[in-house]
Amino acid sequence: MTGAETNMRLKLPIICFILEIILIILFGVLVQYDDETDAREWHNKLNHGNKSHSEHNGHAESEIHSEYENDFYYRYPSFQDVHVMIFIGFGFLMTFLQRYGFSSVGFNFLIAAFSLQWATLMQGFFHGMHGGKIHIGVESMINADFCTGAVLISFGAVLGKTSPVQLLVMAIFEVTLFAVNEFILLSILGAKDAGGSMTIHTFGAYFGLTVTRVLYRPNLDKSKHKNCSVYHSDLFAMIGTIYLWMFWPSFNSAVTAHGDDQHRTAMNTYYSLAACTLATYGMSAVTAHDGKLDMVHIQNAALAGGVAAGTAGEMMLTPVGSMIVGFLAGIISVLGYKYLSPILEEKLKVQDTCGVHNLHGMPGVLGAIVGAVTAAVATTDVYGKGMEDVFPDVAKGDITASYQGVRQAISLAVTLGMALVGGLIVGFLLKLPIYGAPPDTICFEDNIYWEVIFISWIQDTMHPDKFP
Amino acid sequence: MTGAETNMRLKLPIICFILEIILIILFGVLVQYDDETDAREWHNKLNHGNKSHSEHNGHAESEIHSEYENDFYYRYPSFQDVHVMIFIGFGFLMTFLQRYGFSSVGFNFLIAAFSLQWATLMQGFFHGMHGGKIHIGVESMINADFCTGAVLISFGAVLGKTSPVQLLVMAIFEVTLFAVNEFILLSILGAKDAGGSMTIHTFGAYFGLTVTRVLYRPNLDKSKHKNCSVYHSDLFAMIGTIYLWMFWPSFNSAVTAHGDDQHRTAMNTYYSLAACTLATYGMSAVTAHDGKLDMVHIQNAALAGGVAAGTAGEMMLTPVGSMIVGFLAGIISVLGYKYLSPILEEKLKVQDTCGVHNLHGMPGVLGAIVGAVTAAVATTDVYGKGMEDVFPDVAKGDITASYQGVRQAISLAVTLGMALVGGLIVGFLLKLPIYGAPPDTICFEDNIYWEVIFISWIQDTMHPDKFP
Amino acid sequence: MTGAETNMRLKLPIICFILEIILIILFGVLVQYDDETDAREWHNKLNHGNKSHSEHNGHAESEIHSEYENDFYYRYPSFQDVHVMIFIGFGFLMTFLQRYGFSSVGFNFLIAAFSLQWATLMQGFFHGMHGGKIHIGVESMINADFCTGAVLISFGAVLGKTSPVQLLVMAIFEVTLFAVNEFILLSILGAKDAGGSMTIHTFGAYFGLTVTRVLYRPNLDKSKHKNCSVYHSDLFAMIGTIYLWMFWPSFNSAVTAHGDDQHRTAMNTYYSLAACTLATYGMSAVTAHDGKLDMVHIQNAALAGGVAAGTAGEMMLTPVGSMIVGFLAGIISVLGYKYLSPILEEKLKVQDTCGVHNLHGMPGVLGAIVGAVTAAVATTDVYGKGMEDVFPDVAKGDITASYQGVRQAISLAVTLGMALVGGLIVGFLLKLPIYGAPPDTICFEDNIYWEVIFISWIQDTMHPDKFP
Repeated sequence: MTGAETNMRLKLPIICFILEIILIILFGVLVQYDDETDAREWHNKLNHGNKSHSEHNGHAESEIHSEYENDFYYRYPSFQDVHVMIFIGFGFLMTFLQRYGFSSVGFNFLIAAFSLQWATLMQGFFHGMHGGKIHIGVESMINADFCTGAVLISFGAVLGKTSPVQLLVMAIFEVTLFAVNEFILLSILGAKDAGGSMTIHTFGAYFGLTVTRVLYRPNLDKSKHKNCSVYHSDLFAMIGTIYLWMFWPSFNSAVTAHGDDQHRTAMNTYYSLAACTLATYGMSAVTAHDGKLDMVHIQNAALAGGVAAGTAGEMMLTPVGSMIVGFLAGIISVLGYKYLSPILEEKLKVQDTCGVHNLHGMPGVLGAIVGAVTAAVATTDVYGKGMEDVFPDVAKGDITASYQGVRQAISLAVTLGMALVGGLIVGFLLKLPIYGAPPDTICFEDNIYWEVIFISWIQDTMHPDKFP
Repeated sequence: MTGAETNMRLKLPIICFILEIILIILFGVLVQYDDETDAREWHNKLNHGNKSHSEHNGHAESEIHSEYENDFYYRYPSFQDVHVMIFIGFGFLMTFLQRYGFSSVGFNFLIAAFSLQWATLMQGFFHGMHGGKIHIGVESMINADFCTGAVLISFGAVLGKTSPVQLLVMAIFEVTLFAVNEFILLSILGAKDAGGSMTIHTFGAYFGLTVTRVLYRPNLDKSKHKNCSVYHSDLFAMIGTIYLWMFWPSFNSAVTAHGDDQHRTAMNTYYSLAACTLATYGMSAVTAHDGKLDMVHIQNAALAGGVAAGTAGEMMLTPVGSMIVGFLAGIISVLGYKYLSPILEEKLKVQDTCGVHNLHGMPGVLGAIVGAVTAAVATTDVYGKGMEDVFPDVAKGDITASYQGVRQAISLAVTLGMALVGGLIVGFLLKLPIYGAPPDTICFEDNIYWEVIFISWIQDTMHPDKFP
Repeated sequence: MTGAETNMRLKLPIICFILEIILIILFGVLVQYDDETDAREWHNKLNHGNKSHSEHNGHAESEIHSEYENDFYYRYPSFQDVHVMIFIGFGFLMTFLQRYGFSSVGFNFLIAAFSLQWATLMQGFFHGMHGGKIHIGVESMINADFCTGAVLISFGAVLGKTSPVQLLVMAIFEVTLFAVNEFILLSILGAKDAGGSMTIHTFGAYFGLTVTRVLYRPNLDKSKHKNCSVYHSDLFAMIGTIYLWMFWPSFNSAVTAHGDDQHRTAMNTYYSLAACTLATYGMSAVTAHDGKLDMVHIQNAALAGGVAAGTAGEMMLTPVGSMIVGFLAGIISVLGYKYLSPILEEKLKVQDTCGVHNLHGMPGVLGAIVGAVTAAVATTDVYGKGMEDVFPDVAKGDITASYQGVRQAISLAVTLGMALVGGLIVGFLLKLPIYGAPPDTICFEDNIYWEVIFISWIQDTMHPDKFP
């Protein structure tokens, strides 16, 4: 069976326990309820009828009328949709491999559960400190899930070729770099990126692609026969796809300002995705010599519209603008799967299992560019007093809209740089032969890290006389 | 393999691209953010503290206290539940066929993504125009999803026997007719139908049944061995069933008036479905000679209680009234699957793959009748000032409650007429031999329109020595 | 095939119809809309701007500003998450058995649909009567789903060894006892248990374990080869696991007081589950001789953090406290699956199919103890005016916090006693040979109660030449 070096009996427990104990200690020292989750603080605010807005970026109300003003009611339904995307969406999307379903859902589950805790600390450290303490509530929970999303995108690039220990080590560093990059973009550069075209998708994709490039396996074709789907694994993957597709409007709008902003962002994303889906089906048929649809395209490219609306979704992109963006994203994404991925693998030695370059990479860059352009053409005539929520610095008159566009463009460049340099360093770290990575002959295979039972209802099925 | 005429390489891309480009042009010309999604308009309303209610049918408040008054917070959670029903519910419910899972989920996805865009235009044209522009927000998104639901019901009737091009053409016309019928019912006749027993279920079912009648295939038994389920396909279908069942309360209450109306509608539907489920299990066992439960009944008939509460759910139907309605719907639906469907197929040549007549047709008519009766017996004593929300014309004294009942009954007749005539015309249009429909020998088969890989984990499973 | 005694043709319809007719009669006589679902009552409250709080336990506001104050908007999103846990979560979690998927999802569906109706009456009888009528709304719907959860936990203990009639009979009695126990705990003893560590998990688990002990089958090993999972059944089960995991924050917070309480409970549960997941993976690997992860642990033990946060989640447990609780729960649960379950089966003759003792039993007791300790150390300094919501009797000065802790501890003892005695009596009742229970040779097998088709896409798959 599998050799001693891939045996997880000590490696995995050690890293899980050490990480969780460190997390517990740091949470104990650093983390507190924020004003809306703390019993005393919230009731003080409620009774004084005066809500300080230092802690969240919602629209300013001068008074608290009722329990409803608690941010929980504004954001918790969106949070739950995002949560489903992270755990069901990403997890099941990756079950398309015929013999890697346990690992796809199971490692997704493990690294997400770790990342959201670690992200709470890292993001809190960079932009949630209050008097030496990290204050947390539903908004920080959404942001932690967002950061986790970037790690899961990178997981897609290395899927089937890594051990769970390796993935946890990757998550430690990627979460940290994500928080640094996010801090630079949102707090230093003043960029807007509510749905994370840059911070989540571009960063996660190019980080993961660089890691998988560094981890290049010249003899991966020894596991080639397992690096494909079967009928039912493709259906399981569609569960992931459809959930991601349906809840992407909630993803992009989860942390925008309250009111029209959340409402508009959700709607823009809805139309972007719908247009993207038609483009995907058309492109999938036209690029196949026999006109047959390819499940890989449907499962992935149909989602590119959500990625591409991640930056501009909260802006006055208009419904038609959203549809054009989604339409382009779908076309680019299918073309990427069909023509670019094989080139990347052969020429650049980038073995991108899930094709994250096509779903998150290129559409993320497209989304960042659309965001820069949409920001640059913003006018007070169009945004009215809503400018304050979307582009506060423009509303205050500190900068022009064009300059906001420049900020957005710089942010894209910074993100790409961070992802590539970070991925390079982390890639080499992950290359150390200490994590129990699978050998080239047993990639894309659950059996190496999971108890898998091969006696099966199928054999029974073949012998119906065995049944009463 | 499959002949040239079913090759989708040109047909599908052409229709997808043409449709999407037309949609983009029309959205560009006609569609605008409504007052609650537009940055300037919403902030104007918020600052003036005065909310015009011209744009949505919610309960009138005289002032806007906070961002919470944005319709997003009243309706978005319901919207997401409806969205899940449309894409997961309908999509997976139809995966019961052993070799048609890709098409069930995949074509459902395609025609839904198209229909919701087209419905935005058609419904907007008929009842959302403001100064030459269609205003959109979360309520129009829900309505677009509702209209899509009707198309998916019709899809259920023709499942396995149609090409994706044919389905898109059907959707174009059905969405249009849906919008006309809805306009006649709600705006001209003044009927109430929040959960769409008439507009969605009765219309979708009888339209689809007429289409499948016109497309009658005398030699369909050549594909008979594929027109059935297998063990795991039935489990996938249960995902669809359970999601439809759970979220039906959100479906029926998604566009009712705010407050008690949404609350009551959701609760009535919850009890109707619970009672329906017990009736379904009882009927399924009693109609089988060996007392064994039939998955077809459980997957479908257990949902009839949601359909039948679609009109009266928002009225003061009472919990016990809801349970009686659900109970009857479950009984009727199982009887339909067991005894009526075979007759419809043999005598009337209606090949109804999913049995939509039993799940949407008869329970929809039942729901319409229950709605008419419940409306006719409405009294001010029972509704109080809530009469304004449920039956505004009765509240104003313009008509009596009995007359509202008559309106409801006429609406059912109109819907049946529209569905039958519309289905007849569209059916003949779909009969043209230009859409690449599958031959009689290859119905209910994914392989004709999808790349399907037949090497399989099963074979691997049979040879465990192949594994390390 | 199966003998006459397991034929459900008369038994199941009779019990379904009789139960539903009794429910309908009792609902007709006893059940009414509450103030927030009744058209007249709600509009009276709305117009008078004065909301009586006799009917729900939310935080007191003195005025109704708008439709938003309707409890629907506070609780319906949580209700839907709970609903998903009950029907998808529990239902699919149990599909891990290779040949019991129809029964797992299907009987789960049946007994849940019955239990939620019966629970409405029983819980209403014990704590929802107003002038001789049971008033219902979204909160009673959540409570009915909660009670259903306890029945489904017990179902997990007897899974595969019971007929649907037997399960319905069990549900009748268990729901009744649940309501009595809940009444004693919450109304007489004044305990707090928002997420039901005691009322739901401890009660459901020990009740079910006692029932399965009484129903002990010495020859169950005759069905041993079916009492295990296969590859795809484990993936279906992961759908259940992940949904339970994701929505547990909504479960624990669904009926807590509005505002900070719901917010804090959801967040505590989120961190408890995340820590529990890392503990589960670590323990699963370390307890396997070859270091391979066991799907049984991942599917179940990773959820123990939600169970263990069920009582203290609404209290000021702090994020770090939640993580410690979850971490311990994960460790205990895996150890239980690995070492305790075999002992329970061999020595105590407890055949616990799903291992509910490890997922609900021990973590439930842990949760109750954590709740007692957390209550005992509550101070006004920490809770401020929020004390009123969490520990009203302590806030009023009627009792000390330590005494609240004693109440909690007594509640655990009462729950254990009720579950054991109740399970014993109901177990003997279920032993009567009249319910059509499966023989020892055909346990864990759908074929006995369901039409199962064995011709299969697999055989087709093996002969690809059969396809065009």
